[in-house]
Amino acid sequence: MTSIGERVPRKEDPRLLRGLGRFGDDQDRPGQLWLRVVRSPVAHGRLVSISRPNGAQVVTAEDLPPGLRIPVRLKVQDIDLSDHLQPVLAAEEVRYVGEPVAVVLADDPYEAEDLAELVQVEIDELPVTVDTAAGVRAAEFELGYGDVEAAFGKADHVVQIEFDVGRHSAVPLEPRALLADVDPSTGALQIFGMTKVPVFNRDVLATMIGIDENLVHVHAMDAGGGFGVRGEFYPEDFLVPWLAWKLRRPVKWVEDRAEHLVAVNHSRQQQHVIAAAFDNEGTLLGLKDDVLHDNGAYARTHGIIVPELTLAMLPGPYRVPAFHGRIRVMLTNKTPCGTYRAPGRFEGTAVREQLLDVAADRIGIDRVELRRKNLLTADELPHTRAMSTLGTDVVLDSGDYLGLLDKAMVEADRLGYLSQLESLKAQGRKVGLGVAMFLEKSGLGPQETADVTIGTSGDVRVYSGGTSLGQGIETILAQVTADALTVDPAVVTVINGDTVLQPFGGGSWASRSTVVGGSAVHRAALAVRERAIRMASRMLEVSEEDLEVSAGTIGVKGAPGSSVSYADVAKACRPGSPYLQPDEPAGLSARRRFEVEHMTYPYGVHVTLVDVDTGTGRVKVLRYLVAYEVGRAINPTLVEGQLLGGVAQGVGGALLEEFRYDEAGQPQAVTFMDYLMPTAAELPQIDILVAQDAPAPGNPLGVKGAGEGGLTAAGGAIAGAIRDALGLTGPVGRLPMTAERVRGLDKEGK
Amino acid sequence: MTSIGERVPRKEDPRLLRGLGRFGDDQDRPGQLWLRVVRSPVAHGRLVSISRPNGAQVVTAEDLPPGLRIPVRLKVQDIDLSDHLQPVLAAEEVRYVGEPVAVVLADDPYEAEDLAELVQVEIDELPVTVDTAAGVRAAEFELGYGDVEAAFGKADHVVQIEFDVGRHSAVPLEPRALLADVDPSTGALQIFGMTKVPVFNRDVLATMIGIDENLVHVHAMDAGGGFGVRGEFYPEDFLVPWLAWKLRRPVKWVEDRAEHLVAVNHSRQQQHVIAAAFDNEGTLLGLKDDVLHDNGAYARTHGIIVPELTLAMLPGPYRVPAFHGRIRVMLTNKTPCGTYRAPGRFEGTAVREQLLDVAADRIGIDRVELRRKNLLTADELPHTRAMSTLGTDVVLDSGDYLGLLDKAMVEADRLGYLSQLESLKAQGRKVGLGVAMFLEKSGLGPQETADVTIGTSGDVRVYSGGTSLGQGIETILAQVTADALTVDPAVVTVINGDTVLQPFGGGSWASRSTVVGGSAVHRAALAVRERAIRMASRMLEVSEEDLEVSAGTIGVKGAPGSSVSYADVAKACRPGSPYLQPDEPAGLSARRRFEVEHMTYPYGVHVTLVDVDTGTGRVKVLRYLVAYEVGRAINPTLVEGQLLGGVAQGVGGALLEEFRYDEAGQPQAVTFMDYLMPTAAELPQIDILVAQDAPAPGNPLGVKGAGEGGLTAAGGAIAGAIRDALGLTGPVGRLPMTAERVRGLDKEGK
Repeated sequence: MTSIGERVPRKEDPRLLRGLGRFGDDQDRPGQLWLRVVRSPVAHGRLVSISRPNGAQVVTAEDLPPGLRIPVRLKVQDIDLSDHLQPVLAAEEVRYVGEPVAVVLADDPYEAEDLAELVQVEIDELPVTVDTAAGVRAAEFELGYGDVEAAFGKADHVVQIEFDVGRHSAVPLEPRALLADVDPSTGALQIFGMTKVPVFNRDVLATMIGIDENLVHVHAMDAGGGFGVRGEFYPEDFLVPWLAWKLRRPVKWVEDRAEHLVAVNHSRQQQHVIAAAFDNEGTLLGLKDDVLHDNGAYARTHGIIVPELTLAMLPGPYRVPAFHGRIRVMLTNKTPCGTYRAPGRFEGTAVREQLLDVAADRIGIDRVELRRKNLLTADELPHTRAMSTLGTDVVLDSGDYLGLLDKAMVEADRLGYLSQLESLKAQGRKVGLGVAMFLEKSGLGPQETADVTIGTSGDVRVYSGGTSLGQGIETILAQVTADALTVDPAVVTVINGDTVLQPFGGGSWASRSTVVGGSAVHRAALAVRERAIRMASRMLEVSEEDLEVSAGTIGVKGAPGSSVSYADVAKACRPGSPYLQPDEPAGLSARRRFEVEHMTYPYGVHVTLVDVDTGTGRVKVLRYLVAYEVGRAINPTLVEGQLLGGVAQGVGGALLEEFRYDEAGQPQAVTFMDYLMPTAAELPQIDILVAQDAPAPGNPLGVKGAGEGGLTAAGGAIAGAIRDALGLTGPVGRLPMTAERVRGLDKEGK
Repeated sequence: MTSIGERVPRKEDPRLLRGLGRFGDDQDRPGQLWLRVVRSPVAHGRLVSISRPNGAQVVTAEDLPPGLRIPVRLKVQDIDLSDHLQPVLAAEEVRYVGEPVAVVLADDPYEAEDLAELVQVEIDELPVTVDTAAGVRAAEFELGYGDVEAAFGKADHVVQIEFDVGRHSAVPLEPRALLADVDPSTGALQIFGMTKVPVFNRDVLATMIGIDENLVHVHAMDAGGGFGVRGEFYPEDFLVPWLAWKLRRPVKWVEDRAEHLVAVNHSRQQQHVIAAAFDNEGTLLGLKDDVLHDNGAYARTHGIIVPELTLAMLPGPYRVPAFHGRIRVMLTNKTPCGTYRAPGRFEGTAVREQLLDVAADRIGIDRVELRRKNLLTADELPHTRAMSTLGTDVVLDSGDYLGLLDKAMVEADRLGYLSQLESLKAQGRKVGLGVAMFLEKSGLGPQETADVTIGTSGDVRVYSGGTSLGQGIETILAQVTADALTVDPAVVTVINGDTVLQPFGGGSWASRSTVVGGSAVHRAALAVRERAIRMASRMLEVSEEDLEVSAGTIGVKGAPGSSVSYADVAKACRPGSPYLQPDEPAGLSARRRFEVEHMTYPYGVHVTLVDVDTGTGRVKVLRYLVAYEVGRAINPTLVEGQLLGGVAQGVGGALLEEFRYDEAGQPQAVTFMDYLMPTAAELPQIDILVAQDAPAPGNPLGVKGAGEGGLTAAGGAIAGAIRDALGLTGPVGRLPMTAERVRGLDKEGK
C-alpha cells in the first residue's frame, strides 16, 4: 500500500470548507488589548513630535528599547545592510507612507482605531524619491561566469532590450493578524499567527526582547494565503508580543486591507537592460543583464535576496556559456520590498523570454526552435554554474528540458491552441501565442526536522516544521507518513509550525516543504516503523528479520495470525512496559532531520493564447497551459492546485496589479478599486501537464517543489503573446501590460 | 557549587505572592460556556425523571455515551471493583447526596446556577445506609505474615482496643476548576486545571471520549493545595472536556465550596479492633487488626488503596514478628472516598500508637521505653515484610528509628516540653504529653521522566512530570538541576504537569516528586552536562577528559581562558551547526527516565503537649514537635514547610474536622460553620527537627519524601496526649476528639 502519488482528498478541507479553520483573527483572549498602528502620512520627513491624546495609551520609539532594527533573514554574500534596516518604530525620520511611527492600545478595536486617528504626528517634510534610478544605492553586486565580453565580441547577432517589471506583491485573502499572550501554565510568551518561519521568528523575537527562545512559543495558525509576504518578521511582529510580555496582558492586532497594501513587503520592481549574443545559427554565446532593483525605503528580512535570485536564475534552463549580471539595489521612499512567490524568477524569466522572442525574430528563426537549440540537454545535467544563491551553489540536478518543451507544444496543439490561434486570426482578431520556458529552484536546506509519533489508539501524529498556508502541506506530509508506515492517510494528523511541538522547523517558503520537510517526515516515519519492528520482535519473540509490515500491522512472515498493530506497539512503549529496556526512550516516536546542501531545480513551460482588444487595450487570456516537472508528484491534485493558483497570480502581475506612487510618494493603490486583482472573469480554464520524468536525485522521495512554477513564466508568456498579437518587432518593454499601456504599445507598433 | 541543601527562596513565590499565579479559575476563553452540575438532593433513590427548563441546555446520562464509569487508577491485588465504579452521571439510581445527575450549560455562571436550580429531579427514595457496618461489602482482603495465633497464644499480655477514625478530607483553599477548549492550532482538546496526575488523566479521558491520547493536552495550573483530593479523575473531569470537544466551544466549570464538601473524595473513616501480644518484658510478639473501612457510595479512582495502605503500613517502624490484618470495604450512602495526605497511615498510626500507650500502662512500662524496646534497630534494616502495597514489596530501606526517637525526646526536653508539662500540672491544669512514632512511605515508581534543555541564552528549562500544588516542587527541581549543571538555580525554569511538554509524567502524589521526579531531573541534567562536554570538546578541539565544568562553564583544565558557556554550546547544537554530526539530535537537551521498584521509607516522631479544658471540652495544643528523617533535604525550608502544613491538617483531623451525616444520609457539614478547619488560633508554634541521618539507598539523591510526615502521627500523638491529660486507663477511642466527645470521655474517665 502506498499513498504517494494518489489524489487523496485534502485533509485541510473538512476544516476549511466547514468554517472550522482557525485563522489569526479567530483567536481572542479575555481582557485583551487591541493594538492599532499609527503610520506616517508622508513619504519622507523628520519626525518632530507625536501627540498623546487624552487617556490614550500611546507607544512611540522613545518607549522601546533603543536601537531596535529588524535583522535580515537571508544574507547575500557578505554584504552589510545594517545601515538600511527598518526600525520597529520610526524614531527620527520617516521614509515611506505607511511606516509605523506609534501604536495605540485600547480595549476594543474601534476605540483603538479612533484614538489612533487622534494622534497628531508632526513631520518636517523632506525631498521624496520615487524614481528608482534616483534612489540611494544600498548595495551593488555582480554574478556570472565565463568570458562575456569575448562572447559578445565574436557574436553574429547581439540583441538587447530594455524591460521593466512593475511593483506588485502578494495580496492574500486574509491580512495579517497576531495575538500574543503570556501562557499561564508555562510562563511562555505565546504568539498565534506568524505562519511561515515560526522558529526563525521565535529566535528573532527572543533576541530583540532579550529572553531565551524557549520562552517564546509561536503557534502557526491557518492562513488565508502566504505567497512570501505573510509571516516574515515585520515591525508588528515585535510590537504585539513585546507589549503582551511587558504589560502581561493579551494583545491583539489585525491588519486591515488598506494597511496591508502599504505595510507588507512589496516586490518585483526592476529595470533590466539585457542583451544576448548569438551566432548565425542562433546558438547562444553569452548573456548579460544590468538591473536596477527598487527595494523601497529599507532592507527588510529578505535583505537583497530577490536581486541575487534574479541574477543567479537568469540563465534559466539554457546553455549559456558566459553570463554576467550586475544589480544595483536602490532605496526609494516607497514600501520596503521582499519576496513574492517566484521571487527574481518571475522578473528574470519575463525579461529573458522576451529577449529570446525578440532575438528569434531578428535572427529569423522560430522562437520555439531557438529555445530548443539552446536548452541544456538531459545529458548535460547535472550542470554546475559558477554562481551561488541562497547560500547554495547553483547545480541544476536533473531534467529533460527539451522533452518537456516538446511535450508542452504537443499538448497545446492537441488541446487546439494552434488551430484556435489560426481561426481567430482568420477572423481578424488580434490574437497571439506566447511560449516561455523557465527554470525553478526548490528544496532549500540546510535542514528540516520532523517528529512522528503513534499513540495507543494507532493514530499517527506528525510535528513538522512546515507551515500550512493553504498549500495542502498537511495532506502531503500525511501521505508521505502513511506511505512509510503502510497506514491510511486518514489516521495521520499533521501539526505544522508549532515551535513547542517542533522546535527545529525551517518553515514553508522557497518551495521547500515537500522536498525538505517531506524528506524529514519520511525519515522520521521510517524510523518509527523500524522501532515498531524492533518492539514487535520482542513482543512476538521472533527475530526482526522474520517480521514484515503491511497495512499498519507488524506480522510474522508466513504466519498471518501472529501480529501486532502499531497501537499494540505504542502500548508496549509506555514507560514501565516490560518490553522497554532501561534506558530506551518511551513512546513510539522518532525525530529525524533531513539535511541538504543543494537545491533541486524543477522547470516548466507556459503556453498562452491571448486576444488583444486594441480599442480598449484589454488583454483577454483565452488559453493557458502549464507544463511542469516535479520529479514525483506526492499528490497530483495538489500540484495542479499550486500551478493553477500561480497562473492566476501571474496573470495579475502580467496584466493588472501595480503599486503606483505619485511624485510625493503617495501610494495610488490602497484599495481594490485601484489595486486590480484578477478574478475568475479574467482567467480561462487552465490546462496543466504535470511531468514526473526527472526525479530529484538529492532526496529520498525524488520530489521537486511545485509552489511557484505556475507563476514563474506568466510574465514572459503573456508578454510574448501580446507581442505576437500586436506584431511588435521590439519588446513589450514592461509589465504589467495594463489596458492603457497596451493602447500605447499598439500606437507605437503602428 | 552545589545548591542542594541550600535554603533557596521558593521560585514559586514571586509569582504567587504578587498575585501572578494562574489558577484554574483564572483561565477564560471568549465564548465559553459555563457548566453547572445538578446534584442529587437525596442519599439513595431511583431516578424517575429530570426536567429540562425552557431554553436550558441540560445534559443527562441519556446524552452520554452509554456505560461510562470512571476507572480505578490504583489497583489492589486482583480485586475487581467494576460493579462499584461511579458513573459520570447517575443513570438509574442515586447513591449519595451530591451525586451528579445532570449538567446545565449557559453563557454565564450565574445563569447556569439559576437554571440548574430550575431543573427538577424526580427521585423515588430508597432505604439509606449511613452506618458503616450495615453497608454493602465491596471487597474484603487480608494482609500479614508470621504466625499471629501462635504469638497471641504464648503472650504474657494481650492488649486490645477499639478505635474509630472520623470521616474527613482535604479542603484546599481553592476548589476545583476546569477549562476545556479545542486548540485552534493543533486541533487538540486542551484542558487547564487537572493538577496531580495529568498524564494518567489524559489517558483516561482519551479512552472515555474515544480519541487518541495525543489529541488531549492537559496543562496543570497553579493549585491552591492538593493533598490527594485535587486532580483525581472525577465526573466533572469527563463532562467538561467532553462537552468542549462535542460542542467545539470552550467549557468552564468552577466548583463552589458547598459542592466541594460533598463532591471531592472523603477519606479516613475506619473502625478498628486492634490487638497486640507482648511478653512480660514488653516485647511485641504479634499484632492484629480488624478494620471496617467506609468507602462511601462508590469505588473511585483510588479503589481500595487506602485500606491496603492502612494494613501494609500498620506495623510501622516496629519489630513485629507476626502480623495479621483484615479489612472489609463497605459501601454506604455517603460521598465516595479516596486518599487524603498520609492515607492509611494517619488512621493506622493513630490506632497503633494509642494501642501502645494503653499497653504500656497495662504492662507497667514507660510508653517511650516500650517503643524503644520494639523499634527495629539500624542493624536490622533493610527489613522486608512479606506484604506489598501500591504494587511494591514492603522493604524498609534504611533508618535509625531509635536514634530519631531519642533525638526527638532530647529536643522536646531541651525546648521545655517536659518542664512545662510539670509546671502546668502543678498548677492543676489537665495537661498531657503525647508521643507517637511512625513510618512513612515515599518515592513510588514505577518511573518518572524529565526533560532538561538549555537555550541559546543559557537559560535552563526543565519539563517535569510532577505538578505544582504549592509544595515548592519547582524550587526543588531547579536546585537539583542547578546542582548537576553547576549553574545558579535562578536560571532554571521548571515547567510541571504539561502533557505536551512532558508526555511521560507520573504526577505529584504519594510523596514521590522529589524522590522519583527529582532523580529523573538529576539524570536528565547530568546527561545535558555530558552532552555539553562532548560538544565543547569539538568546539575547543580538546579531548573530553581535558575538560571540566564549573560555574556553568566548560573549560580546559588548567587553561582558564579556554572555555565555552552552556549558551555557546546551545548555539553549537542548532540544526545546521558544523559541530553537529549528521544524525545527532539538535538542541542541548536530554530526556531521561528514572525507574524504581521499591519505595523509600522515611519516618518520624511527633511529640505534643495539650491542655484539656474539661469544662468546655476544648483541647488546646500547647506545643508540637515533629522530628523527621528525609535522607537528604534538598531545601530544608521546604521540608519544614511541608511538615508545618501537615501538622495543621493533623490537628484538624484529630480535633475538629468531620463529615457527619444524619440518618437520611444528609451531610451535616456543607459549610465552614459546620466543617471546622483549624485556624492559626488553634495552632501553637511548631518545632521541626529535620534529620538527614539515613540517606535513601535507592535513588541518586539519597532523598526520602517529606510530603506527609507532618500529618501521619498527629492523630496518634494528640490522642495520646489527651489520654495522658485525662488519665484514662482505656483508649481515647475515636477521632476527632471534638469538645463534645472530650466532655463525654472525661465523664467516662471519672
